Amino acid sequence: MTEIKILKNILDQNRHRAEDNRQVFNKHGILALNFIASPGAGKTTLLEKTISGLKGKLEFAVIEGDITGDYDARRLAALGIPVVQINTEGGCHLDAGMVHKAFQDFVLDRTDILAVENVGNLVCPAEFDLGEAFKVVVLSVPEGEDKPAKYPLIFSEAGAVVFSKIDLLKAVNFDLAKAREDVRRINREAPIFELSAATGQGMGEWMDWLVSKLNEQRKFNSTQPFS
Amino acid sequence: MTEIKILKNILDQNRHRAEDNRQVFNKHGILALNFIASPGAGKTTLLEKTISGLKGKLEFAVIEGDITGDYDARRLAALGIPVVQINTEGGCHLDAGMVHKAFQDFVLDRTDILAVENVGNLVCPAEFDLGEAFKVVVLSVPEGEDKPAKYPLIFSEAGAVVFSKIDLLKAVNFDLAKAREDVRRINREAPIFELSAATGQGMGEWMDWLVSKLNEQRKFNSTQPFS
Repeated sequence: MTEIKILKNILDQNRHRAEDNRQVFNKHGILALNFIASPGAGKTTLLEKTISGLKGKLEFAVIEGDITGDYDARRLAALGIPVVQINTEGGCHLDAGMVHKAFQDFVLDRTDILAVENVGNLVCPAEFDLGEAFKVVVLSVPEGEDKPAKYPLIFSEAGAVVFSKIDLLKAVNFDLAKAREDVRRINREAPIFELSAATGQGMGEWMDWLVSKLNEQRKFNSTQPFS
Repeated sequence: MTEIKILKNILDQNRHRAEDNRQVFNKHGILALNFIASPGAGKTTLLEKTISGLKGKLEFAVIEGDITGDYDARRLAALGIPVVQINTEGGCHLDAGMVHKAFQDFVLDRTDILAVENVGNLVCPAEFDLGEAFKVVVLSVPEGEDKPAKYPLIFSEAGAVVFSKIDLLKAVNFDLAKAREDVRRINREAPIFELSAATGQGMGEWMDWLVSKLNEQRKFNSTQPFS
C-alpha cells in the first residue's frame, strides 16, 4: 500500500501549499479562480472575452497550465496582460506548488483577478486545491448533458459552472434542463451560467458575478472593495 | 524519488499484463481497439453506429471505462452485444489488469472486435498499454484543431485518428488542413478519418478500415481471416 501512502502525502503537502497561496491572495485582495474543463471546452476563449470585457475596470493576471507548448498563453498575452505558462510535461493537472512559483512573476497589488487555466481534463484537477477562491467548471454544449453525472467530483467542487458555446445549442443535442438538474443534484450552491463567448450571449451576467465575488471577498478580508 | 520508482514499477507491471492480454487477443483472432478522447468527443456514439453498421458481419464486445456510473454501457448493451463496465472511482485511465479481468466475461472465440472505451481524457490513458492492436484517438471538431499540438503524446501513439462530428464543421472554427498537418507532423502512419456518426458521413470508409485491419491481423497470426 506504499502507493496509497505516497498519494496521501502528495495531497497533504498540496493542501498546505494551497493554504499558503490562499493567504497570499487574500492579503493582496486577489480573487483567484481555477478554470477546469475538458480539452476544447472553450476556457481560453472565455478568458479572452472576459478580460477584454472588463478591460479598464479590472486587472487580470493569468497562469496557463498545459502539457506542452504555449499556444493559449500567447493568445492571452496578446491582450496586454501578464501571463505565466506552466508546462506539466505529461502531468494531467496543476498543483499548488507550481502555482506558487508562477505567481512570483506578478505584481500582486496590481492584480484583481488571477485566472488559472488548468490542464484540459475533467478528472485529475478535481483533487488538487491550488489556493483558489473558486473552481470554475466549464462544460461546452457539444460535449453533451451527461457530463455532470459522469464526472461528479469536479462538478460537486465547482464554485461556478459555465455551460459554454450555447450558440451551438441548435446544432447539437444538449438538454439544458437535465444538465442543470444533474449539477443541482450534486451541487446546491454554484451559480450556473449559460453563455457563448463567441456571440457574447450571457457574458454580462457572468462578468457581473465576477465583480460581485471580488467585492465580497475584499469586504470579508477587509481589503479595499473594488467599487 | 520514491514516487518516480513507484510509477516506473506500475508502468512495467502494466506493460507485462498488456502483453499477456495481446497474446490472448491474437490467439482468439480478436482485433482489440482502445478508444481515447476528451469527454464528449463522441466515442460512445461512434461505437453505437459502428456496431450497428457492422451488425451481422462482425461480432463486437465492449469494455466501458468510466469514473462512475454505467450510462454508456447501457447505451451499448441496448444493441444486444456483450458489455462490461469498469468504474475507476476517480482513476483517470484504464490499465491492462482491469481489462484482463473484464474480458473474462466474454466468449472470446465469438468475438471479432473488442472495443475498449477508455475514460474521457487526452492525457493519462496515453501511458497505459491495454494490450490493444491500436489506439483510436477521437477528436471532435468543436474541440478545435489545436488539440494534436497540445496533446502530442496521445496523437503520436494513435493507430488511427478520427475527426468526429464533422457535421458541425460549418458551425465551429476548425481548420481541417491544419489539424491533419499537425497529426502528420507527430504521426506519419495513422490513417485519419473525417466522419459524423450522427449523419453517417465518412462511416463507410472507417468501417471498411476496421474489417481490413481485422483480416490483416488474422492473416499475420494465421488465424481464420474474416472473409
